[in-house]
Amino acid sequence: MQNAQQNTLRDAMRILNLTRDAITERLGVSRRALDSWLLPDHSNEHRSMPTIVERFLAEILSQAPKNLATKNIDSTSAHWAPHLLSVEQFSRESVEELFRIADIMQPVARRQKTCRVLEGAVLANLFFEASTRTRISFGAAFCRLGGSVCDTTGFTFSSMAKGESIYDTSRVVSGYADVIVVRHPEQGAVAEFAQASNIPIINGGDGPGEHPTQALLDLYTMEREFSRLNKLIDGSHIALVGDLKHGRAAHSLAKLLSLYRGLKITLLAPAGLEMPASIIDAASRNGNIVQCTDNLATGLADADVIYATRVQKERMQGEVMEGYGENFQINLRAVNSFCKPNVIVMHPLPRDSRSGANDLSTDLNQDPRLAIFRQTDNGVPIRMAIFAKLLGVDQQVAHSLRDISWVHPQKLGPNDASFDEL
Amino acid sequence: MQNAQQNTLRDAMRILNLTRDAITERLGVSRRALDSWLLPDHSNEHRSMPTIVERFLAEILSQAPKNLATKNIDSTSAHWAPHLLSVEQFSRESVEELFRIADIMQPVARRQKTCRVLEGAVLANLFFEASTRTRISFGAAFCRLGGSVCDTTGFTFSSMAKGESIYDTSRVVSGYADVIVVRHPEQGAVAEFAQASNIPIINGGDGPGEHPTQALLDLYTMEREFSRLNKLIDGSHIALVGDLKHGRAAHSLAKLLSLYRGLKITLLAPAGLEMPASIIDAASRNGNIVQCTDNLATGLADADVIYATRVQKERMQGEVMEGYGENFQINLRAVNSFCKPNVIVMHPLPRDSRSGANDLSTDLNQDPRLAIFRQTDNGVPIRMAIFAKLLGVDQQVAHSLRDISWVHPQKLGPNDASFDEL
Amino acid sequence: MQNAQQNTLRDAMRILNLTRDAITERLGVSRRALDSWLLPDHSNEHRSMPTIVERFLAEILSQAPKNLATKNIDSTSAHWAPHLLSVEQFSRESVEELFRIADIMQPVARRQKTCRVLEGAVLANLFFEASTRTRISFGAAFCRLGGSVCDTTGFTFSSMAKGESIYDTSRVVSGYADVIVVRHPEQGAVAEFAQASNIPIINGGDGPGEHPTQALLDLYTMEREFSRLNKLIDGSHIALVGDLKHGRAAHSLAKLLSLYRGLKITLLAPAGLEMPASIIDAASRNGNIVQCTDNLATGLADADVIYATRVQKERMQGEVMEGYGENFQINLRAVNSFCKPNVIVMHPLPRDSRSGANDLSTDLNQDPRLAIFRQTDNGVPIRMAIFAKLLGVDQQVAHSLRDISWVHPQKLGPNDASFDEL
Repeated sequence: MQNAQQNTLRDAMRILNLTRDAITERLGVSRRALDSWLLPDHSNEHRSMPTIVERFLAEILSQAPKNLATKNIDSTSAHWAPHLLSVEQFSRESVEELFRIADIMQPVARRQKTCRVLEGAVLANLFFEASTRTRISFGAAFCRLGGSVCDTTGFTFSSMAKGESIYDTSRVVSGYADVIVVRHPEQGAVAEFAQASNIPIINGGDGPGEHPTQALLDLYTMEREFSRLNKLIDGSHIALVGDLKHGRAAHSLAKLLSLYRGLKITLLAPAGLEMPASIIDAASRNGNIVQCTDNLATGLADADVIYATRVQKERMQGEVMEGYGENFQINLRAVNSFCKPNVIVMHPLPRDSRSGANDLSTDLNQDPRLAIFRQTDNGVPIRMAIFAKLLGVDQQVAHSLRDISWVHPQKLGPNDASFDEL
Repeated sequence: MQNAQQNTLRDAMRILNLTRDAITERLGVSRRALDSWLLPDHSNEHRSMPTIVERFLAEILSQAPKNLATKNIDSTSAHWAPHLLSVEQFSRESVEELFRIADIMQPVARRQKTCRVLEGAVLANLFFEASTRTRISFGAAFCRLGGSVCDTTGFTFSSMAKGESIYDTSRVVSGYADVIVVRHPEQGAVAEFAQASNIPIINGGDGPGEHPTQALLDLYTMEREFSRLNKLIDGSHIALVGDLKHGRAAHSLAKLLSLYRGLKITLLAPAGLEMPASIIDAASRNGNIVQCTDNLATGLADADVIYATRVQKERMQGEVMEGYGENFQINLRAVNSFCKPNVIVMHPLPRDSRSGANDLSTDLNQDPRLAIFRQTDNGVPIRMAIFAKLLGVDQQVAHSLRDISWVHPQKLGPNDASFDEL
Repeated sequence: MQNAQQNTLRDAMRILNLTRDAITERLGVSRRALDSWLLPDHSNEHRSMPTIVERFLAEILSQAPKNLATKNIDSTSAHWAPHLLSVEQFSRESVEELFRIADIMQPVARRQKTCRVLEGAVLANLFFEASTRTRISFGAAFCRLGGSVCDTTGFTFSSMAKGESIYDTSRVVSGYADVIVVRHPEQGAVAEFAQASNIPIINGGDGPGEHPTQALLDLYTMEREFSRLNKLIDGSHIALVGDLKHGRAAHSLAKLLSLYRGLKITLLAPAGLEMPASIIDAASRNGNIVQCTDNLATGLADADVIYATRVQKERMQGEVMEGYGENFQINLRAVNSFCKPNVIVMHPLPRDSRSGANDLSTDLNQDPRLAIFRQTDNGVPIRMAIFAKLLGVDQQVAHSLRDISWVHPQKLGPNDASFDEL
């Protein structure tokens, strides 16, 4: 358990997007003093933060979110309302606004509080392509806001099999529900849904197209992990590893990273599975350095994040997969040999744990550097934030939280890291 | 947006089932005065309704619903409780009672209010035949009353595959849920469910049998559309078009129309797909005039409603379909050429939008005469009314409405008519 | 309808686990007096219970539950928390504690009260093997506690098809939900789920393995039926009939019966479908007498309960089924010919009602001795009790009950026994 003082400081740095050096300057204190306040209570070097610093911080924070909020409402609402179809709708500001809303959702997602702001609202969860994980994540997020879920599972939508157009389906369901999540095997199908409806449509994945909520939760995870480690996304080194040709999540994430500054992005893919040039262009748009390699040792050196991906066999059409052998696998040996000690290992999941798949190894399961379950956990607050923003209730959440009545475990999984208590 | 005065008058005419002339007589005012009150505010001819008329109307209305309600409880409850299996259970009075309950549900269905009268109740939504649209409509209706939904999708019910009888299945699920919706491919199967249960069973479609909630929402739509146009169902001209042999919805609707007076019903079907004689007999029971033709031009002339239907290929067994060509399609050209200017175009949906299907054309999508989405929207308040009536909470709804917390669009779809704002 | 005095006495005997003779001794009254208090009001022999006896009983009861509760929390919580995987986790005390919680749930399960203690909580209902009945029973139980349900149906879990391990699936879903029910075709798979999660995992059936909630509801049904008949499970005679080789429910029930004393357990199976020796050993552990036979006439004589089971054809691998003919069927003739008048007929359902299946006959459907629907009804309060106990809200339920708003029938099914009114 971390102490309140340390949490307050870390949250402040994250919300203000300041490094330790920058906040030192802002507060007018020495770096050494700051470091001592951030140390665990039981450390000999630990010092209490003076009251005057606390008050100063509180005042800075009381200004900051209001400014951000006002600015965001003006500048970004038009960008991604009413529909969430693509990461390309986002600006740096609207991403950060969404993450601040997700922060407000964390106590609900982590079962400390309940929230009923969407009581009476209905989500239609239309999955024309099976994705149990994503469907349940959206459904649970909506339920935790107090709403009700109607969903379809499996590959067929009965009326569409009878020749119904996407236009008709979308408009009909818009009469039943307040928001619709659509997953569809064909690129562009979700956008077609959106054209027929004025209620919010969320892209839950459209084949080889986009899966924007995955990319948003990935980026949010980086921000939270970095916050714990007193880093910022700006200026960090992100390594994307694996099948970068078909990996929809990697494509969308790379586009989102272009909203940040001073990044080094390493693209580690076997021959034939390289990232498409258009995505590389997008990622380097803001002056970020993008380098491509197939050498794990040099590519991972100095990385702050390894973002591993699965080979998307179901999206391949006869490509060769030479080079995607054992020597390309992210496992304990590779992480220990090639990486900085506090590297973060991510993966959009599912990972293929069958032998010979050479996907992200399970030998990291007990390692706190493995962030994959913290990452999937973050799907709930991010999706709650998206629902709240699209339905205009994000300002109501903080005031409507209530304590939960039931008992929850200290940690969700037996191998969760010590810093990841509920 | 319409003004309060006009809405009050229109609602009164609908609730009292009076034409403009009839309400003129009842109120003791001139027809010219009434017309001026009903005109839009910005019209030069518009006049304000005197306070004395407002008071008189309010008093008439305060009497009317009580009389209706008392009468209906005595005369109709036995007819369609506890189960809703067939439109043949309905009298004119019980249909009108149901529509008045649906009117109360409109603010909830149209996202202005929430309602929790069924909080704690459970719906079992058993779909032995896929029908995502109908399943979600029932589910959303139940959720909007505050209840919870357990549903099955797809074609198999695991225990029935192991030889379980309908009797056992029905009685078992009656122990879990407070009301059951059943859709089943075999005619009569839902009635068999009902025999094994004392909790309300609702027929969600039993193969070639009935789909009573569809027929009820169709009729309710006609009433609402006519109300807007200052017409009554009594004395109107309804044209049913398409595959009238297999169209379950058209059969049930024709039976319900026999509860009204002075109708002209035109049955427009290609050779081989004509309406069965038994349905024609039922529809003409009350002295309504029923005429059959395959000529679109003469059949549609003077119609107040075109009710188009899809060719039910999945229910056909080798019939020929000659004559169901392009010249039988309802499209913009046909409507403009053959129909009165304020005709209403309906369809039970789904419509087959594939080329060559010759189903209701999409070239009417921007036309306010196309009522198909207002029609499907009405499925929610009608199904809410059915649940409320069967579970005996219909009198509690009006007193338990609360404002919604979230934001909703002005119109559900981009092509919705200007008079169909939420 | 039974009178309050009789119900009070019967509940007391059940809660204190005392026979008529034992409670007579405890209260210091004559057996004859007790019997007269238990007779129906309209009987000539009926007498009112003196106030002093009422007070004495109330005092004994006010002590008893507290003692039980304290003892149970100390001795049993560790046994079956956080997961419910097997009946072998249960002691006599923890079974009885669970049944007392289920008693508290009865007014909710029987639609007299609603309860919202789990409002905001999410159940993930993961059915990797179809079992609509069990899935809806768990789902309805969770909804009746105020929670929300996300479920999967059918045979595939999309991410597992892509090579995801049970470990990953379980930990991921633990991030979405507060409790997980898993049904899986492979024995041991649910235990593997439990190893990857700290949130409660409930075994909803793992192939040939266990189905502990079924065995618990079976035992609870016996207790309730015996209570009505003034019997105890201790000292009773239970006959298990049918395919005892594959009947998972019969195996688990036999194990649970070993927690009771002085039982006679008769195992009636055709040659080749006998109960495995390991289960017989477990059932006779506490000195219970277990006898095996294939003679219905002698086996059923003197039985207090017939527990019939279905031939599990889907779990067979080429076994012969000789001897499972008509003469092995439990039907009205067999019950009338071989059994005591107040025998109870149970079955875990579904029963195979196809002719030639020789499963439990439908000719008992109107017979009050047939307890199969009371048994399946008991699935809801038992599963509510399991959720409440695992999530630590069992003590909150009694104080949070509210009256329901809707109307429910007197009896769930048209053939329900007169004593089984809601």
